[in-house]
Amino acid sequence: MVASEVRALFAVASRPEIVSLAGGMPNVSALPLDAIGTLMAELVAERGAVALQYGSAQGDPGLRETICRVMAAEGIDDAHPDDVMVTVGSQQALDLVTRVFVDPGDTVVTEAPTYVTALGVFAAYQANVVHVAMDEDGVVPEALTETFARLEREGRPAKLFYTVPTFQNPAGVTLSAARRPQVVEVCRRAGVLLLEDNPYGLLHLDGDEPMRALRADAPDDVIYLGSFSKTLAPGLRVGWALAPAAVREKLVLAAESAMLSHSVFNQLAVDRYLRTQPWPEQMKDFRAMYRERRDTMLDALEKYMPPGVSWTRPAGGFFVWVTLPEGLDSKAMLPRAIQSRVAYVPGTGFYADGGGRQAMRLSYCYPPPERIRDGVRLLADVIGAELRLRDVFGTSAPATSTGPQAPGPDQA
Amino acid sequence: MVASEVRALFAVASRPEIVSLAGGMPNVSALPLDAIGTLMAELVAERGAVALQYGSAQGDPGLRETICRVMAAEGIDDAHPDDVMVTVGSQQALDLVTRVFVDPGDTVVTEAPTYVTALGVFAAYQANVVHVAMDEDGVVPEALTETFARLEREGRPAKLFYTVPTFQNPAGVTLSAARRPQVVEVCRRAGVLLLEDNPYGLLHLDGDEPMRALRADAPDDVIYLGSFSKTLAPGLRVGWALAPAAVREKLVLAAESAMLSHSVFNQLAVDRYLRTQPWPEQMKDFRAMYRERRDTMLDALEKYMPPGVSWTRPAGGFFVWVTLPEGLDSKAMLPRAIQSRVAYVPGTGFYADGGGRQAMRLSYCYPPPERIRDGVRLLADVIGAELRLRDVFGTSAPATSTGPQAPGPDQA
Repeated sequence: MVASEVRALFAVASRPEIVSLAGGMPNVSALPLDAIGTLMAELVAERGAVALQYGSAQGDPGLRETICRVMAAEGIDDAHPDDVMVTVGSQQALDLVTRVFVDPGDTVVTEAPTYVTALGVFAAYQANVVHVAMDEDGVVPEALTETFARLEREGRPAKLFYTVPTFQNPAGVTLSAARRPQVVEVCRRAGVLLLEDNPYGLLHLDGDEPMRALRADAPDDVIYLGSFSKTLAPGLRVGWALAPAAVREKLVLAAESAMLSHSVFNQLAVDRYLRTQPWPEQMKDFRAMYRERRDTMLDALEKYMPPGVSWTRPAGGFFVWVTLPEGLDSKAMLPRAIQSRVAYVPGTGFYADGGGRQAMRLSYCYPPPERIRDGVRLLADVIGAELRLRDVFGTSAPATSTGPQAPGPDQA
Repeated sequence: MVASEVRALFAVASRPEIVSLAGGMPNVSALPLDAIGTLMAELVAERGAVALQYGSAQGDPGLRETICRVMAAEGIDDAHPDDVMVTVGSQQALDLVTRVFVDPGDTVVTEAPTYVTALGVFAAYQANVVHVAMDEDGVVPEALTETFARLEREGRPAKLFYTVPTFQNPAGVTLSAARRPQVVEVCRRAGVLLLEDNPYGLLHLDGDEPMRALRADAPDDVIYLGSFSKTLAPGLRVGWALAPAAVREKLVLAAESAMLSHSVFNQLAVDRYLRTQPWPEQMKDFRAMYRERRDTMLDALEKYMPPGVSWTRPAGGFFVWVTLPEGLDSKAMLPRAIQSRVAYVPGTGFYADGGGRQAMRLSYCYPPPERIRDGVRLLADVIGAELRLRDVFGTSAPATSTGPQAPGPDQA
């Protein structure tokens, strides 16, 4: 399943009669729209000649200071605004890092499964993607070590390890605190650049404290990507990269070539929002909202799913990864799910190697709780019907790599 | 002179004590800031859930319709919104077109001189740039024909012809109406993709009608780039590409990989501005403002410049291209100009081959008229002092390619 198929799926899934558990859109309706509108009008009135003009390719200095304060919440307390570059979402940062570091034929290592549009970027730069297994504690350091060694032996050493360590998209798992220094060390020893993509870190739903970023303890070894798309609004397209100075300079040159500069207006609007609005309180509200939705989804999975279906239990972020019983194919099943008015993303979208047929990603971020419950119930009925078909006609698809396994509901 | 040097120059030139004739920033202070602030607040209040959310990689359908109406003013009356893609300024469109069509080692042909950041993009994709001469009527079709033929013979055929045909940056010249079909035909016969970059077309300062775009008469042969950066506000970063359907689909995939989507908010704000505000009247005011500034610059050049200095007479846009007398070097002279409190961009910034040493770009878009007059006077004094040095010490630099020659003031 490639990006264009996922896009077509999202178009179908956006029909009002469908319960979409497919998209990863944050619930921006929960934002204080009046306050945002007012601060934008003030921004144009007070600083229009700056906000509506060209800016620097690196981004607004005031916003870069604010970004450093935001990152401090996840343990990155030594970042300097000079080493931050503002980008069009963290997607552009991912694109620019790949542009600067990855040549055609280079090997990029990612988790299995991984973020679908990262796969699109790596494909665009003609990189070869190799996956590394995860379990419920995230990527397995031993598997990473073995993969790097194997690739080295095969004469195609890894150039980059791309990871979403916290509340991973799509698997919903988090790299444990114990493994974090191990993963950094494995990459350092192998001489592999570590690219940490962290759009969900502040959406921790269990406990009051966010996870500590990999970058917090490895300032020289990690390029860190952040975003306001999930914590404020994706429609403003403000993300960033934090990188060691030599790298950052290359990224700024690439950004200048790619777009001259980001929108100064959007940068100043985000900065003004963070400086003047009660953002920490807003984030608490966001977490409470997403916590209710996650709990609703987990409860409904437990209640409705037939035996043999298993899923991950995310401690934050937007996604649950569901593994189907032997013999079921999530992509083949999708048309029947749509017919039953529920949508998800088949697991194959998150693999470069055809894996994930027996898995799917469910999102709880966008629909309200009652819709989530309805959607899971509808999906459970579809899976139940598939299971009955399987039992009559036999296996409909071979089992392949299915991503992180979690204890099934009967074992939970 | 490379992009980073130009950036450093702009930083120096932005000091308040310096008259900067260097930057190409539009005068956004002339915009109705109250109206813009109000419509942004209304947009968030009325459509915040859409404006602050992710959008499509191709761009907002309503804005794409509006863009088609804008392009009709320059003779493009058959464009369909489906063939428009919204980008982060036309710079991103230029980057994506290059990404899709130009492989390392490919040959890109441009005017001599050409837009500095286009050279940056072509360098980023490891293209080889070959320049073609212009005169006061723009690029010379015979020279273009000969260049394509020579490159073909040399086994490095041109892939792309990049042109700013109207009110060119930096030369300030315009491809004549008579030459337009010839240039299209030369490219068509040679099988070279024609990339028309037209950020200044609606800033025509002589006569009531804009020039007819190359794309208007060659829908299947031209990729057309447009922008609201000069006609509304660069700080919103809204530009676009209009391309034949097969090309456009490739560009949209590349845009999705590069940034997922542009800011929906910015797109809807531009669309709302164009639909609800008296934009045609605003454009008349803009043209009157820039006309006064251009006339001021041309009058001051006439009045103050020593004999032997020549310059172009732009019919629109932002720039005048000045050619210095034999033996003068605009880059070597720059520190002395800065010391005398006037800044310009040396001609070498606009050549990939070291040309332009004897030329410079002057902008009249940003400083008010009295500052323009002061700046030209200061610059004329610097050039006069250089000429006296030259007459004492001999030629300070070899004469090289200097771009379009225009009649000197004494011949005008």
